[in-house]
Amino acid sequence: MRAVVYKEPFKVAVENVADPKILHPNDAIVRITSSCICGSDLHMYEGRTAAQPGIVFGHENMGVIEEVGAAVKERKVGDRVVMPFNVACGFCNNCLGGFTGFCTTVNPGFAGGAYGYVSMGPWVGGQAEFLQVPFADFNCLPLPAGTEHEAAFALLADIFPTGYHGAELAGVKPGESVAVFGAGPVGLMAAYSCLIRGAAEVYVVDHVKERLDMAESIGATPINYDTASPVDQIKELRGGSGVDKGIDAVGYQATKAGSSAVGGEQDEVPNIVLNQLIDVVNPTGALGIPGLYVPSDPGGVDANAARGALSLNFGQLFEKGLKLATGQCNVKQYNAQLRDLIISGKAKPDFVVSHEVSLDEGPDAYVKFDRREDGYTKVILHP
Amino acid sequence: MRAVVYKEPFKVAVENVADPKILHPNDAIVRITSSCICGSDLHMYEGRTAAQPGIVFGHENMGVIEEVGAAVKERKVGDRVVMPFNVACGFCNNCLGGFTGFCTTVNPGFAGGAYGYVSMGPWVGGQAEFLQVPFADFNCLPLPAGTEHEAAFALLADIFPTGYHGAELAGVKPGESVAVFGAGPVGLMAAYSCLIRGAAEVYVVDHVKERLDMAESIGATPINYDTASPVDQIKELRGGSGVDKGIDAVGYQATKAGSSAVGGEQDEVPNIVLNQLIDVVNPTGALGIPGLYVPSDPGGVDANAARGALSLNFGQLFEKGLKLATGQCNVKQYNAQLRDLIISGKAKPDFVVSHEVSLDEGPDAYVKFDRREDGYTKVILHP
Amino acid sequence: MRAVVYKEPFKVAVENVADPKILHPNDAIVRITSSCICGSDLHMYEGRTAAQPGIVFGHENMGVIEEVGAAVKERKVGDRVVMPFNVACGFCNNCLGGFTGFCTTVNPGFAGGAYGYVSMGPWVGGQAEFLQVPFADFNCLPLPAGTEHEAAFALLADIFPTGYHGAELAGVKPGESVAVFGAGPVGLMAAYSCLIRGAAEVYVVDHVKERLDMAESIGATPINYDTASPVDQIKELRGGSGVDKGIDAVGYQATKAGSSAVGGEQDEVPNIVLNQLIDVVNPTGALGIPGLYVPSDPGGVDANAARGALSLNFGQLFEKGLKLATGQCNVKQYNAQLRDLIISGKAKPDFVVSHEVSLDEGPDAYVKFDRREDGYTKVILHP
Amino acid sequence: MRAVVYKEPFKVAVENVADPKILHPNDAIVRITSSCICGSDLHMYEGRTAAQPGIVFGHENMGVIEEVGAAVKERKVGDRVVMPFNVACGFCNNCLGGFTGFCTTVNPGFAGGAYGYVSMGPWVGGQAEFLQVPFADFNCLPLPAGTEHEAAFALLADIFPTGYHGAELAGVKPGESVAVFGAGPVGLMAAYSCLIRGAAEVYVVDHVKERLDMAESIGATPINYDTASPVDQIKELRGGSGVDKGIDAVGYQATKAGSSAVGGEQDEVPNIVLNQLIDVVNPTGALGIPGLYVPSDPGGVDANAARGALSLNFGQLFEKGLKLATGQCNVKQYNAQLRDLIISGKAKPDFVVSHEVSLDEGPDAYVKFDRREDGYTKVILHP
Repeated sequence: MRAVVYKEPFKVAVENVADPKILHPNDAIVRITSSCICGSDLHMYEGRTAAQPGIVFGHENMGVIEEVGAAVKERKVGDRVVMPFNVACGFCNNCLGGFTGFCTTVNPGFAGGAYGYVSMGPWVGGQAEFLQVPFADFNCLPLPAGTEHEAAFALLADIFPTGYHGAELAGVKPGESVAVFGAGPVGLMAAYSCLIRGAAEVYVVDHVKERLDMAESIGATPINYDTASPVDQIKELRGGSGVDKGIDAVGYQATKAGSSAVGGEQDEVPNIVLNQLIDVVNPTGALGIPGLYVPSDPGGVDANAARGALSLNFGQLFEKGLKLATGQCNVKQYNAQLRDLIISGKAKPDFVVSHEVSLDEGPDAYVKFDRREDGYTKVILHP
Repeated sequence: MRAVVYKEPFKVAVENVADPKILHPNDAIVRITSSCICGSDLHMYEGRTAAQPGIVFGHENMGVIEEVGAAVKERKVGDRVVMPFNVACGFCNNCLGGFTGFCTTVNPGFAGGAYGYVSMGPWVGGQAEFLQVPFADFNCLPLPAGTEHEAAFALLADIFPTGYHGAELAGVKPGESVAVFGAGPVGLMAAYSCLIRGAAEVYVVDHVKERLDMAESIGATPINYDTASPVDQIKELRGGSGVDKGIDAVGYQATKAGSSAVGGEQDEVPNIVLNQLIDVVNPTGALGIPGLYVPSDPGGVDANAARGALSLNFGQLFEKGLKLATGQCNVKQYNAQLRDLIISGKAKPDFVVSHEVSLDEGPDAYVKFDRREDGYTKVILHP
Repeated sequence: MRAVVYKEPFKVAVENVADPKILHPNDAIVRITSSCICGSDLHMYEGRTAAQPGIVFGHENMGVIEEVGAAVKERKVGDRVVMPFNVACGFCNNCLGGFTGFCTTVNPGFAGGAYGYVSMGPWVGGQAEFLQVPFADFNCLPLPAGTEHEAAFALLADIFPTGYHGAELAGVKPGESVAVFGAGPVGLMAAYSCLIRGAAEVYVVDHVKERLDMAESIGATPINYDTASPVDQIKELRGGSGVDKGIDAVGYQATKAGSSAVGGEQDEVPNIVLNQLIDVVNPTGALGIPGLYVPSDPGGVDANAARGALSLNFGQLFEKGLKLATGQCNVKQYNAQLRDLIISGKAKPDFVVSHEVSLDEGPDAYVKFDRREDGYTKVILHP
Repeated sequence: MRAVVYKEPFKVAVENVADPKILHPNDAIVRITSSCICGSDLHMYEGRTAAQPGIVFGHENMGVIEEVGAAVKERKVGDRVVMPFNVACGFCNNCLGGFTGFCTTVNPGFAGGAYGYVSMGPWVGGQAEFLQVPFADFNCLPLPAGTEHEAAFALLADIFPTGYHGAELAGVKPGESVAVFGAGPVGLMAAYSCLIRGAAEVYVVDHVKERLDMAESIGATPINYDTASPVDQIKELRGGSGVDKGIDAVGYQATKAGSSAVGGEQDEVPNIVLNQLIDVVNPTGALGIPGLYVPSDPGGVDANAARGALSLNFGQLFEKGLKLATGQCNVKQYNAQLRDLIISGKAKPDFVVSHEVSLDEGPDAYVKFDRREDGYTKVILHP
C-alpha cells in the first residue's frame, strides 16, 4: 500500500510499504478514509526526536473496517470507525483506571503506545491506505455509517479529545474564567471545550493572527503575546484579577514574544508558558497541561532543557495553593461523548480544519504546515 | 412598607406591614428592586400547605443594600445584591459542607430556612419594599452596579440555580442525553443548565404549548405527554434507547396525560413522573430531583400521598443500578458562577420571564400565574 | 466434571456435567480451588426466582488457569486468579464507564451477566471442578502464586467488593457515622469496608446473635432490631442525632422485628429497611443500597411486592435532601485494591468465613446455610 | 498577659503583652489551654523569614471561650474549642469554595491569614494566656467539655489536618501504595492519615531514627535516606515498581543524604524531594505537597532558591502523566471529621507528641525542638 514515510529531517515521501495483516485474533484492518497530520508529527519531522527513517507517520486515523480477527466480537466488517491515537489493551491496571494513554500492555517496558510514533511501540502509522488496529473491540469507536461529519469525526482521534483533556485536567467548570496558552489546533480545541463545558470567559494566547481570529470566532478573547505580557493583558481585562484556571497547549517548544511565527530553537524558552500560567492563575486555581514536555530533547536550548529539567516558580505556585495535571490524553475517556456532541450538532470542531488533501499531497502539506504557510492550521489526508 | 400578604386560599393582597429592622449585628436591610413569584408560592396560595393568613410572600429577592448592622464586614450600603431563597448562616455543619439549603442555625429544630415561606423560619418575604437579610456577608451576592441584567440576575435567587441543581443532582456531563420532566420555570432552567453544561440531547416533557415552545427555542426537544407516553416518545426518537440522565422538575403535583393545563387534585398522580424517569433512564444512569415532594400534604390524593408515601418501581430502579438525588437547591453553590455566565453574556436565562409588573399588580399576577393564563410563566414584581 | 446442580426448590445435588471448553479465543478454563455459596444463591435455592432445574450454581470463583484461548494475552496457564461474579467484556459503554456489573455484551438484551445465575446469561457456575471464563484478560484478577490467603482472596469474587460497594454507593468518608442494615456476609463486609475507609462510627443492625457478635468484633456497634426500633436505638446512642450515611445490605426479603432468624415470607416487609434508612440518616446524607431488590418476585408478600413496587417515604427523603444509589457491585472497580489490602495484611475479611467444605458436602451446606444452622455465615467449597 | 515573643534569630522570651480584646462583634476571646510549637515557627525562629522582633508566636491554639462579641451566635462562653491555624471569614469566594487557607478577607491584599505568623495578617499568636479569634462562629471548632483528649484535640489546629491534607492532595484511596517524604510531625500525620484512609502500603522517608521508629509503630515502612537512595529502596521493596501516590512533607529546606539531623543551609537541596517523588511515583499517579515552598527565601542556597525557583524534572513528570497539588491546609475541610475520629477512639494522633511543658518553659523548648534534641518531635505549651 501507499503510505507517508519519514526519510530524514524535514523530508517525508509517499512510498509503497507492506500491507498490514491480522497478526492477533483481536486485530482489525481498517481502510483509512481520513488521517490527520498532527503538530506532534512535526517533532519527528523536524528531527527533534529519536525517530529513524522508514517510520510510517499517522496517529489520527479514521476509516472503515476491512477485516477482523477471529476474536473480535462487536466490531464488524464495514463499520465506520475512528481510532484513538493511543493504542490500548483495555485490561491492564492503567486502562482499567481510565488511563488508556498509559497502557502497559501494548508497548512493553513503557506506559503508553501510539500508531506511527517514535518510542510508542511497534504500531505502524495510518497516513496510509490501511491500518492494523489491535484490540479492535476496545480501540475502534463506532460512527454512523456514511460520510457525514467526516472531518469532525476525524478530529476525535486526537485533537478534540486532547483539547478537551486540557479542560478536564484543569477541572474547568461552568462560570469559570480560563487562560489557554497556544492557539494551534489543540489550543483551539481546548478553548472550544472550555466553552462547551460552560466557561464564562476564555482567553487564548498566541501570536499568529489567523489562529487568534479563529479563537475569537468561537467566542474566546484573543491575546497576542507579541503586543505585551499576556499575563498583564489578561489581568487588565479582568480588572486586576487573574483567572480561575489555565491550560498549556504549547509545551516545551514555547517561544518568547517577538519570535517568528514558525518558532525555532533560537526563540525557545521552554518554561515560559508554565511560569506565565503560575502567574496568571488565581490562588486555589488549577493548571491543565496537555502540551508536550519530554524527558529528553536532543535540540533543547541548554543542558537542562535537553534532559527535560525546567526552572519553575514553585514557591509562588505553592503560596497560591495551585494544582497542576499533565500527560497525554486518554482519548477513550472522552471520544464517545464528543462524538455524540458532533452527531447532535452541539459541537462542530472542524472549524479548525484548514486543508483536506490526498495522500500524495502529504509531503507538500508537511512542508507548509511546518512553516505555518498559507494558513495551514490542521490538515486531513484522504488516502 | 407595602407588601404582598397572604389572606386565604387563592387570595393575596398588597397591604402595609411593619418595616424591617436590623435585629442582629450581621443583618442588612435591602431595598427590593425585583422579587419574583415562584411556583412554590402557589403551593401556599392554593392552600396546599399549613401557611396561615398574614404571611408576607417572596423568597426570590434582589435589590440594593439600604443599611447594614455593626458586624457586617464586606457588604456596603449601596451594593446591588441578590439573595438566595435559602437563609443560611455559613458556619453550621451543613453550611460548611455546602448544604446551605439545610442550615441548622436559621430555623431551629429544622434543617433549612427561607424568606416568606411556611415552616421555613421567622424570615419575612421580599414581595415588599424592604427585606431583612441575616448574615448579610454570607447571604448577599454582590452584582455589578446599575440596572443591567436586572431580570436575569433576579433569577439567581432561586430558579436558575434550582434548575442548575437538577442538572448537578443528576450529574449531567458533556455529551450526555437527558430527559427533563416539567417545562415550568424550573424545568426550563434545568434544560438550559444541561445545555450550558454541554449535554448533547435534552428532551423536555410537558403539555403546555408555550412552555414546550420555549424549550424548543433553547435547543431542547419538546415532548408533549398528552400525545403519547413520554417514555415511548423519547425512546422512539433515540432508536429504542433511553437516556443517560433524568430530571424531575415537577414534584408531587404531577398530573396524568390529558389533565387540564392548570392541574388540580383530580388529575394528580404523585408518583407518575418518578416512575416514568425510572423507566426512561438507562441502566447506570442517574435521576436529579429538584421538584418538590413533601412529607405532609393536606390535599394529597389519598392517605399515602397525604403523608408523602409514594409507590416506586424500586425493583426496576435497583436492577438498572440507578442513583437518585433530591432536595432543595443550595443556591450558594452555584449563584456566583451563574452570575458570571450572565455577565459574560454566555447565559441569558431571562427568556423564561413572561411578565414584569409593579408590586400593586401582584395580586392580579398571582391569579393569572396560578391559572397559567395569558402565557404567565414567570413573573417579576418591581416594588 | 463434578458440579453443584439445582434440582428443585430446597434441593441441590453434586452431579457429573460436561467439562467446559474454550469456545472463544479470549476464553480461559480455570480449575476451581475455591467457590463460595452466596446469599443470593439461596434466592434460587428457595424457589424465589425463575431458575430452572439443571443450572450449575456458583458465581464466587477462584482457581488456577488450566488453559487459555489463542487471543488471551497477559494471563497464562498456571496463574492463580479470582473472577468477579459479574461476567464483563471490558469494551461496551457500560464497562468503559466502570459499570462492569451492567455489561451489555455478555448477556444480550440485558445489562449485566454472571456465572451460574438465572437470567444472567449462558455462563455456567463454578461450584464445580472447572469454569469457562470469557474475556480472560479482563475477567481474571491475578493473585500471588501459592495457597496463602485462599479464603480471603475467594471473597474478592463478590462479597468483599459488594460490601465495599455499599460504602462507595453511600460515599462513606473518614470521620463519618454509618448505619448498616444487615449483618449477613455482605453487611459485615460493608461495615468492615466503612471502617477501612475511616468511618468514625458504624452501627450494624440485625437480630442474629452470632452475626451481631462478629460486627462487634471488628469495631462496629451491634443493634438488635428485635429489642426496639433500630432507628430509635441508634439515635439514642448518638444523643438524638441520626447518622451521616446508611447502607441497606438486606434487600427485598427484609423482615420485621421478632421474625424467625431464618426469615420466611410470612415475616417479610420489603420496604421496612428502606424507610428506616430514610428515617435514621440525617439531612444531606446518602444511602448506599447493595441489597437486592427485584422487578419481579413470584413470592412477593402482595401484588405490589410481586412487581417490585414499594411504598417509600419519599416526601421525607426529599425534605432531608437525601441521595440514594443502588445496584449490583461492579467488582472490577474494587477488586485489585482490596486484593492489595489483603496482601499487605491491612484487611482480613475472612473473619466472616464460618465453614470450608468439599464440593461433595455442598448440598448439606446449602441446607444449613439456608437455615442459618450451626453458625453458618459464609461457606467456601473446595472442589 | 504572658506570651512567647520573638526577640531575634534563635531567641524567644516569655514576656508580658497587652491582653486581647473584642474588637469586632464577631470576635471571641479564648483562654488558651494548649498551644503547640510548629515546625513552621522554626522558620521564623531561625531567621529564615521577614519576621520582626516582637511578634507573638502560636498558631496551633486550643482553649475555652472567655468572652464573645455581640454578633456571635452559636459559640458560648465556656465552650471548649480548637481553632484552625488559618484565620478565615467563611464568606469570601475562597472560603465558600472550601479554601479557608486562602481567605481574602482577613489579610487584605493576600490570600490567607494565620495567628502569630509573619505576613499572615494582624492576628496575634496563641502561645499566650488568651487569644482574639475573629469570626468566632466560623473559626471555633467545638469540643466535648472537660479535659479528655487534650493533646489529640490540640493537634486539630494544624498538623493532623495538614498531614491529612497531604493525603487528600495526593488523592490517597483504599488499597494504594504511598511514599511520604519527611517523618516530622506533619509527615507522621500524613502517613497516619493515609492509613486511616485505607492505604495498603505506606513508606516514610527520613533519617532521624526516633521519627522512623514512630512511623514503623503505626504500621508504615521506614526508609532511611542516609542508607541509600530512597527511590531505589522503595522500588526494591516493591519488586521494581514505584508507588501510586507521593507526599512531600518536607518542603524547601530538604536536605541531602548524610546531612546532619538538624539540617542547615549547607546541606539543603531544595528540589531533591520533589524530583525524588517524580521518580518514585508510577505513571498516572499523583503528588500531594503540603510541605512549605516559599516565593522568597532570604537564606536560599542560591539565587534561584532565594526567589523560590526550582529545577524540576518536568519532562519526566509529563511523560508519566503525573498530577501535583500544593498549598497550605484548609483546616476547616477536615477538622470536624478528624475530631470525630478522635472522640470515637478510631484515631489517636497524639502518639506524635513528645513533650508537654508550661508556657514559661517555651523558650527552652524552642531551643531543643530546633536542635531535635532529647527526642523533641512535637511540643505542646500549656499556659
